[in-house]
This record gives sequence, structure tokens and C-alpha cells, in this order.
Amino acid sequence: MKIYGDLISGNCLKVKYVVDFLAIDYEWVPVDVVGGGSRTPEMLALNPVGQVPFIELADGRVLSQSNAIMRYLAAGSNLIPEDFFDQAKMDQWLFWEQYSHETAIAVARYRVVYLGQAVADLDAVLVEKGNAALDVMERRLSENDWFVGDGITLADIALYAYTQFAEQPGFSMSDRPNISRWLAEAKTLLDVA
Amino acid sequence: MKIYGDLISGNCLKVKYVVDFLAIDYEWVPVDVVGGGSRTPEMLALNPVGQVPFIELADGRVLSQSNAIMRYLAAGSNLIPEDFFDQAKMDQWLFWEQYSHETAIAVARYRVVYLGQAVADLDAVLVEKGNAALDVMERRLSENDWFVGDGITLADIALYAYTQFAEQPGFSMSDRPNISRWLAEAKTLLDVA
Repeated sequence: MKIYGDLISGNCLKVKYVVDFLAIDYEWVPVDVVGGGSRTPEMLALNPVGQVPFIELADGRVLSQSNAIMRYLAAGSNLIPEDFFDQAKMDQWLFWEQYSHETAIAVARYRVVYLGQAVADLDAVLVEKGNAALDVMERRLSENDWFVGDGITLADIALYAYTQFAEQPGFSMSDRPNISRWLAEAKTLLDVA
Repeated sequence: MKIYGDLISGNCLKVKYVVDFLAIDYEWVPVDVVGGGSRTPEMLALNPVGQVPFIELADGRVLSQSNAIMRYLAAGSNLIPEDFFDQAKMDQWLFWEQYSHETAIAVARYRVVYLGQAVADLDAVLVEKGNAALDVMERRLSENDWFVGDGITLADIALYAYTQFAEQPGFSMSDRPNISRWLAEAKTLLDVA
């Protein structure tokens, strides 16, 4: 299996965390996202949406969308809860991450780190949305060690991917002790390569 | 089971389509989204994220995020492909819908239909994003009758929910014959209530 990705992207890191955690064999094919590498004719022929990550199986089939890839690769592992309702709650967090978290935290980070925008110049609506997402996380992590059940799942990996960088565009962790605790625990399990 | 939702919301319609299609019993609890009905103290106590749809099971457990709810309610039905890779492709489209489609088509519709913005005044970036999403759909539907496999799945339901309203904020279907064909077929199966 080939994984097409860029290590500056949290969405790509999610997939790397899963395959490394589960010791799945893969070939990493680096793609320069900021330089337009995901939209070359060769890349668009493989993945017409023009985004990374995506995976290419040995038989040529292609799968995109970080959370769908994680769900596919982690099937049958302890990264997906056995309990069916817990699995649905995991899905809830995966969709919430893509809709309400990535669209604020990752976008703010991209503007600051890769486009060079000053933190003070970030769109106030974007910052408010990011803080609201972090508040939702802090509340959930004040109730429970992990997002779902009693151990790390794909929900944690999806949310770790960009939350670990949230301070780069100015989001504060100092008044979010539960996120800070969870980030440290997730890092110990995931960031080992 | 109670479903909290607002029929003006495509995300809520997704859940209604699934329970009606599968003849699952439910009580619909209407929530006035535009009037702030999803953010009252009572609603926030049930779903702290303050969005609809969400479902409340008989034992009080709550599940939110339209695509996670559909996946939970449709388990074991023919709305989810049996083939495991097809299931992953369905997930791919579900995540793509929330990230690249809903955020353009539904947002544009909301601004025009519910906030009264003129179509001509819509943000050009938003319109471009919506057209790009519709182009991805048109290409896929030129290859295959449905998004995944040989029948309707949750991927189609998720994408039908807002695509059916795409002309309201000015997106054109006249040069998108495959979407138009697919919309008509999906409507026959889904829009029966």
C-alpha cells in the first residue's frame, strides 16, 4: 500500500499515526501540498479531488479522506470500539472534527504558519470558532480520559492531529488542563516515529 | 427514539430519509434552528454542541452529527454496502460531503434563503467551491449510477440532502445531466413522505 501525503498536514499525520500504531506496512509517497503537488496531472488522475492524504492499494484502488482511510485501515483493531454505540460516538467525533474543528484550527494554522499571516490579523470569526471547538473538547475531556470509552480510538487520533499545533496560530492551552493532559498522553502513544 | 431536527435543514432531512426508508419508528421533535432553538438551555443540556440533528435513545443516550446518526441507524441495511472497500468509499463520500460540499452549497443556500442575501452578492470563493463540489459529483455520476456500488447508499442520501436545493442559491443543473438524472432517481426513493 502507498500512502500519498505531506507531513505538514494533520490530516496526513492521522493516517501515519494509525499505520505506525498498528504496524501496518506501507510506502510513504511525499506530496508537497503548499507547492501544488496534490494537483499535478499525475495526482489528479489518481485522486480527482486533488487533496492528500489518499491511499493506493496494491490492486490500484484509491481511497481518500483522512477519517475514511483511518476507519478502513483500523478495522478490527482496538482503535475502533467494539461496542456499537461507542463506535457511533467515535463517528460523531470524526465528523465533528472535519466540520467544526479542522475548519477552524487547521485553517488558522495554515494561514499563520504557511501563508505568513500575523496571529493578530486572523479573522475574528475563525478564532471564535476555534475556541468554541477547543471548549467542546475541554468539556468532554473533563468527563472522560479519552473521547470515547476507556482508551485511545480514532476519535482521539483525528482530534490530536491538529490540536497538537493549536498554539501555533495563537490558541491557548493554559486554561485547558484536560486537553493538555490528553495531548501529552496521546503524544506518548502516537508520536513515536 | 426521538429525533430532534428542523426540516429546513438538509442535515436533518438525511436522518428523516433514512428512518422513513427503513421504516424505523421515531418521534420527531421539531427545533427552530434559525430562531436559536438548538441553543436553548434544555437543548444544550442534551447536545452541548448546540446543533441539530441529534437523536435521543429510549435510555437517554444522545448521538449527534447527521452522517454518524445515519451510519448508526442504517447498520445492517442495504443502505450500507456489504463489501468492505465499498463501505470505505461510502465513508469517503460522507466525509467529503461534510467538508467540501455542505460547507459551500448549504452555506450559500442558508445565506440566500434564510438570511436574504442576493445570489449576485454571494462570496465568489464560496460559489467557486460549490461549483467545484458539483463538478466532482457530476464526474462521479458520469461513471456510475450511484456514488458507490449499484444502488442507493448513505453516500447518495448525504449528498442528495443539500444538492436538491443547490439551485436556490444559484448553482446551475442545466449543464450537469448526471446530477439531474441522479437527483430524480433519489427523489423517487427518498422524498415519499
